Amino acid sequence: MYDKIRVVLVNTSHPGNIGGAARAMKNMGLSQLVLVDPERFPDPEAVSRASGADDVLAGARVVATLEEALADCVLVLGTSARDRRIPWPVVDPREAADKVLDQLEGPNAGPVALVFGREHSGLTSEELQRCRYHVHIPSDPEFSSLNLAAAVQVLTYEVRMQSLRRQGQSTTFASSSVAASDDQQPVTAEQMELFYQHLQQVMIEIGFLDPEHPKKLMSRLRRLFERGQPNQVEMNILRGILTETQKAIGVQAAGARRQ
Amino acid sequence: MYDKIRVVLVNTSHPGNIGGAARAMKNMGLSQLVLVDPERFPDPEAVSRASGADDVLAGARVVATLEEALADCVLVLGTSARDRRIPWPVVDPREAADKVLDQLEGPNAGPVALVFGREHSGLTSEELQRCRYHVHIPSDPEFSSLNLAAAVQVLTYEVRMQSLRRQGQSTTFASSSVAASDDQQPVTAEQMELFYQHLQQVMIEIGFLDPEHPKKLMSRLRRLFERGQPNQVEMNILRGILTETQKAIGVQAAGARRQ
Repeated sequence: MYDKIRVVLVNTSHPGNIGGAARAMKNMGLSQLVLVDPERFPDPEAVSRASGADDVLAGARVVATLEEALADCVLVLGTSARDRRIPWPVVDPREAADKVLDQLEGPNAGPVALVFGREHSGLTSEELQRCRYHVHIPSDPEFSSLNLAAAVQVLTYEVRMQSLRRQGQSTTFASSSVAASDDQQPVTAEQMELFYQHLQQVMIEIGFLDPEHPKKLMSRLRRLFERGQPNQVEMNILRGILTETQKAIGVQAAGARRQ
Repeated sequence: MYDKIRVVLVNTSHPGNIGGAARAMKNMGLSQLVLVDPERFPDPEAVSRASGADDVLAGARVVATLEEALADCVLVLGTSARDRRIPWPVVDPREAADKVLDQLEGPNAGPVALVFGREHSGLTSEELQRCRYHVHIPSDPEFSSLNLAAAVQVLTYEVRMQSLRRQGQSTTFASSSVAASDDQQPVTAEQMELFYQHLQQVMIEIGFLDPEHPKKLMSRLRRLFERGQPNQVEMNILRGILTETQKAIGVQAAGARRQ
């Protein structure tokens, strides 16, 4: 599906940005890059900034006009930093990603284009009028212009995020696929109670808790450990600390008796 | 509110990435940049890539250690590309933004840190263990490593997006009027570190932890207590238990000497 998403860069000045855009695309699983009349390409700076996305650069199609780049596209979205005279449907990057995915999941899954303008002046009004939607990245109005590769990163990130979420796939490489080891086994309520009894006993033995005036010590510690929700491994460690503390004190008690 | 969000870059190699990160931050309305032991800074390449975010660069704080960068933070999130042995709470950038905003909109709006690692190797396991959450940008597993400035762009974009969306529906989160008592005061990263040092010391003294073979004891305990997020009152109790344990053992040691 991602191979139907095309990133179109118009009149890019700095080849480093082309490389950065290629890397951002590949990070998000995209590969279709089209360059409209770039100032310098190919260029070693593009390769350097691509940091391994060489295949995306090598496969980039260079064309003379935006028209050519968009010819077979069924949906075109163009990034726009500025408020325009002509009202146009404006979407944020997340909504843009949804538009892209709706199209690709619908009956007319033709190529979709995300169009990015020049570093300093963006897309012209004429170019923007070729776009069904204008995408506005919600930047600070006082300092609104993103680096070109950064803008590509944000939009391609949203496409991937929304796509993963739609598919019900994890966005965090969840450890859910990991077999439940002791590290994930929760402890039972009974084990928690035994731990609290042990903890209370040790606190009395070290002289921290006065059974006559227990204050709220135990209830506070319960709340802390209930929040933390120890698993089996952690519980073994906690019980181990308590047992070793008792042994260390036991030696002391024996030593004291022998004096 | 954004001035409580700190972007921390650890051991950055390329000053261009520092500049790119500064620009990305300013685009999203952020300004607090902390550099942990950068290889080259200040540097003209940083200024060039910042493209006008000179104020963010000029205000950047350079520190020697991550510990210093995080000392007063009440919430720390660290970016992680890799699947780790020890499972840790992992969030995607959108969830990370919500964690940040929940903290800042709650009663304890202390500084919050987003930590980014080295260009080639990311954050170490030890550094990641100082983070309550690991943030994973859902990139293509075949080509997963984002450019540093691009990663900063994605996370700061999400913070701004989520923040703007929340403000559009501000009637739904009204719990911010709760007064902060000691029971709600979060502890700082520095206090957590002091606690871990104290805990480790006591575990050695009672013979539970062998410094020659520490296994994963400390990292497991860190994970447990990071999940539990002790408040000030609970931290005082935990430290009190450790101190009383040491006293109880100290008596033993003295007693043993007197034999």
